[in-house]
Amino acid sequence: MTSPSSQTGVNAGNHARSIPVVEDELASVGYNSDGLVPAIVQDVETGAVLMMAWMNGETLRLSLQEGRTVFWSRSRQEVWRKGETSGERQWIEEAAYDCDGDTLLFKVRQDGDGACHTGKYSCFYRSFGSI
Amino acid sequence: MTSPSSQTGVNAGNHARSIPVVEDELASVGYNSDGLVPAIVQDVETGAVLMMAWMNGETLRLSLQEGRTVFWSRSRQEVWRKGETSGERQWIEEAAYDCDGDTLLFKVRQDGDGACHTGKYSCFYRSFGSI
Repeated sequence: MTSPSSQTGVNAGNHARSIPVVEDELASVGYNSDGLVPAIVQDVETGAVLMMAWMNGETLRLSLQEGRTVFWSRSRQEVWRKGETSGERQWIEEAAYDCDGDTLLFKVRQDGDGACHTGKYSCFYRSFGSI
Repeated sequence: MTSPSSQTGVNAGNHARSIPVVEDELASVGYNSDGLVPAIVQDVETGAVLMMAWMNGETLRLSLQEGRTVFWSRSRQEVWRKGETSGERQWIEEAAYDCDGDTLLFKVRQDGDGACHTGKYSCFYRSFGSI
């Protein structure tokens, strides 16, 4: 990262630092019929795509405010602070939204061994055609 | 890439090479109520996340067979061979599915200037808190 953290919302260390909440930016995000938007999580150090989960308007705002990923659990229908129990928290360095405003990308520093509930580093550990 | 291409479905150059279609693997993929699964596309050279789009069972199979990304256009409700008109094709080096089988990840070599219809390299060119 070469950009000054004060300008870009870069999180310098493994602790929470909020990203400025700009209402115009939040208003650019579109949600599906369930009120959710897919959020891709990438390891800012390795570049690996770790996981994809879902946010609603509330958890996107919480993610920016708390400087860590907060998702909406579709299975439990509740706010899901990633790593709250496992310790595998994700500290946000950069947060972006795409051209259509219907997908989010979070570059994070990953705590613990990885992002996947299976214990793997990345959820994408299975390749097609790998037999 | 250090893995032998014959074993991992790695595409050595900027031309199509299919990835073996394994029915057991395809059967591990789950689709939403519209019959779609989100597909993340990552530049295998730079590690940048380029875009996210949607596939159905047919276009996932076509992607593997043709060795390039083929999506389902939700707006046009038709098969969308990425770059067919723009030339910004994406040649698949690796294709993976996540722990839950409900998200795909494609590592590609990107033709042209980039992946975004705006002309940008990546669709994720807008950061939160960047004012």
